[in-house]
Amino acid sequence: MNFPIIFHILGWVLNMEAVLMVPSVITGFIYGEAAVTSFFWTMAICLIIGVPLALYKPKDRIFYVREGFVTVALCWIIMSIMGSLPFLFSGSITHPIDALFETVSGFTTTGASILPEVESLPKCILFWRSFTHWIGGMGVLVFLLSILPMAGGSHINLMKAESPGPIVGRMAPTVQSTAKILYKIYVAMTILQVILLLLGGMPLFDSLTISFGSAGTGGFGIKNDSMAGYSVYQQNVVTVFMILFGVNFNVYYLILLKKFKQSLLVEELRWYLGIIVASIVIIAFNIQHLFSSLGQAFQQAAFQVGSIITTTGYSTTDFNLWPQASRTILVMLMFVGACAGSTGGGIKVSRFVILLKTIRKELHQFLHPRSIKKIKMDGKSLEHEVVRNTNVFLITYVIIFSFSILLLAFDNLDLITNFTAVAATFNNIGPGLELVGPAANFSIFSYPAKLVLTFDMLAGRLEIFPLLLLFVRDTWKRF
Amino acid sequence: MNFPIIFHILGWVLNMEAVLMVPSVITGFIYGEAAVTSFFWTMAICLIIGVPLALYKPKDRIFYVREGFVTVALCWIIMSIMGSLPFLFSGSITHPIDALFETVSGFTTTGASILPEVESLPKCILFWRSFTHWIGGMGVLVFLLSILPMAGGSHINLMKAESPGPIVGRMAPTVQSTAKILYKIYVAMTILQVILLLLGGMPLFDSLTISFGSAGTGGFGIKNDSMAGYSVYQQNVVTVFMILFGVNFNVYYLILLKKFKQSLLVEELRWYLGIIVASIVIIAFNIQHLFSSLGQAFQQAAFQVGSIITTTGYSTTDFNLWPQASRTILVMLMFVGACAGSTGGGIKVSRFVILLKTIRKELHQFLHPRSIKKIKMDGKSLEHEVVRNTNVFLITYVIIFSFSILLLAFDNLDLITNFTAVAATFNNIGPGLELVGPAANFSIFSYPAKLVLTFDMLAGRLEIFPLLLLFVRDTWKRF
Repeated sequence: MNFPIIFHILGWVLNMEAVLMVPSVITGFIYGEAAVTSFFWTMAICLIIGVPLALYKPKDRIFYVREGFVTVALCWIIMSIMGSLPFLFSGSITHPIDALFETVSGFTTTGASILPEVESLPKCILFWRSFTHWIGGMGVLVFLLSILPMAGGSHINLMKAESPGPIVGRMAPTVQSTAKILYKIYVAMTILQVILLLLGGMPLFDSLTISFGSAGTGGFGIKNDSMAGYSVYQQNVVTVFMILFGVNFNVYYLILLKKFKQSLLVEELRWYLGIIVASIVIIAFNIQHLFSSLGQAFQQAAFQVGSIITTTGYSTTDFNLWPQASRTILVMLMFVGACAGSTGGGIKVSRFVILLKTIRKELHQFLHPRSIKKIKMDGKSLEHEVVRNTNVFLITYVIIFSFSILLLAFDNLDLITNFTAVAATFNNIGPGLELVGPAANFSIFSYPAKLVLTFDMLAGRLEIFPLLLLFVRDTWKRF
Repeated sequence: MNFPIIFHILGWVLNMEAVLMVPSVITGFIYGEAAVTSFFWTMAICLIIGVPLALYKPKDRIFYVREGFVTVALCWIIMSIMGSLPFLFSGSITHPIDALFETVSGFTTTGASILPEVESLPKCILFWRSFTHWIGGMGVLVFLLSILPMAGGSHINLMKAESPGPIVGRMAPTVQSTAKILYKIYVAMTILQVILLLLGGMPLFDSLTISFGSAGTGGFGIKNDSMAGYSVYQQNVVTVFMILFGVNFNVYYLILLKKFKQSLLVEELRWYLGIIVASIVIIAFNIQHLFSSLGQAFQQAAFQVGSIITTTGYSTTDFNLWPQASRTILVMLMFVGACAGSTGGGIKVSRFVILLKTIRKELHQFLHPRSIKKIKMDGKSLEHEVVRNTNVFLITYVIIFSFSILLLAFDNLDLITNFTAVAATFNNIGPGLELVGPAANFSIFSYPAKLVLTFDMLAGRLEIFPLLLLFVRDTWKRF
């Protein structure tokens, strides 16, 4: 492992984190809040560690997949620790594990909170809390890629490790220009959402924070009742944008290139939209009796389906009280997740498509043992490595999932709470069912349980392997 | 697909089923029960269909894996339908779907019952109910193999399709002699258990039926409180034998060959025993406060752990009332299941070992991309096909599992009931938690839901693919 280069990148990430706190500082000044000083201290710490590390030039520029994985895992951990300091310094959260949980929940775009109420927090802290979603959504290292000249090999390997989904492709000729395009689309869509919310009469602060939460598919609200208090128009804007941010960004790139027909043929997109429409229809009819009209049932179903499948986690109503069929569909959607190459979490639609195709291939193999059939996606054969990695991903996912539930069980809460708490954190959603339902929060868990859930959030966002690699002894050898 | 040979084997299975009803007839005569006539009618129907089919000699003797899979799936379905007739004819169960559920539960060694109470049933019906466990435990076609001369290729392909586990090996030089050895071990161990129970003062009828249930790792009881009313000695005998019947029978073969050291080195056995011991210890301390002594807690923990990991499903106490950690461990054990090549169900210990090794290999691959490392089991490299099939098995398992829960959700029962009902049937265990806990039964479900669970029991016993193949259009082509 080439540690010098890892530390070098880590330094840049810390410097960048200090810079990313500037908007929160401005918010603090506008509202004249004392809590703004907590950012000064944090920025100072980031820069004191970050600047020397960034200035140090590693001799060896070798950067393989393994370096990419370890860098990403370490960066996210360090960033989360630093990001939790404003919560602690301002006294908004008193226990370090709680602060870490909240920050990891932010950066991983989970949106699970240990805060029983948020409206009393300083605005600059609330801003930072929502802004972590926006930073984490597209990924910090992807951003770093787009602005920094870096060593050969590091670009694609960092992107592979940080971008969600089984296949990471370059859209543009270079990884760096791809990263730039991604961020431009991301910024443009966020601005569009802010404008549409402002037009709907939402205050600027709310429009910004809610757009950060939708863009990153995070879900931290700035109101205690999440999105329930906003108008139907505002809720619908959020519904549409949550679903849009869950789409594979390659689709938008194709649209930018005016390849409209090709963009509609992307297999993952069609599955994604198909699942959304089917779920909304079934749930709407299932919950019809709870609302005054079928139209309202559809509006509420659309919001919740969009919120859960994109792993955002905003809520307009307590779906924990819905009938079992609707609840179960929402739980399933938690696992499906959004598209690969989006800001959403979960297992990802394309993984499920690959897994279903693997099953079909296996059945075909039983009938025609000598046939050699390759699994195709969007008309192209998938590499064996991608299929194998997708399979192993699901296996690892299931095993980590089970162990997390087992560890949580020692808190002696009910099984659904534990199950959906793990589902909601591992898939980076936010709320679960029962004691962690939309109307509740994660403060009920013990500190060891919170650490397990923090691990799950990071493992979910980084798609397991980068984080898991930190626990392999071989990783820490210098070779 | 070579259908003539499939029908030929189907005929033999039906004839055999008629013969296998003889012990129940004898029981009926001994107790002078009128219900015995229901067996006469069933035997007549079996023979009227079975004899002509068995006499018909197919010209084409070709028999591939696909024929093995389809034969096994069809045989188990037909056998279950025929096996349900005595319940219907005797009026013990009135609805055909209920009778089918109960019979499939028997043959698949699940032990989930739709009967709210069993003590009022005729003894001959109770005997048949428990005897289906014993028949299903080792598998009907494996038995057929050991006594019938059959076409080339059919032996190993039938065995592959019916025997549980990722790898099916021959112990003896031929498949047929392997099947004979398996059945001899099976019969000998069952007799030993009957004798030990008789020595403990248990009546002959109880000893026989309970031994059938343990040997097949089934779990149908003949008392409404399952095993709670029996003495500690009797419970302990059952604990030991459940665990013994969950061991890979290859181990016993090695012991028969006096290869003691080799038998102890079987990796799956060591994992299996390790998991059992660890679970018993954790649960015993977790439930200690519910019992008068730690010893009693250990005895109860051992019984429940043995019953669940081997997927038997007998209960001595309502573990639904245990603390969450113990309940969660039991739910995990439901999925682990027994060893491959045993009579137990579940995903199987060896599959988990292979899956864990797959993850380790994947992590190794990230660190050393160019290394070529093969997954080993018991010192031998595993074929790529076995590893792939194990991976695809888990994927298919997860997807069928999720869909079953979704379909059950429309009954509007709670999520834990649905989740554990699917877990208990798909893994061929019997009782789950909450409304399908040890003190409850499956009569609460609607008929569509019961059909879903019936499918799950068959899919679990036949390890999914044989049953799934019936739903592929290609299967029904003659090629």
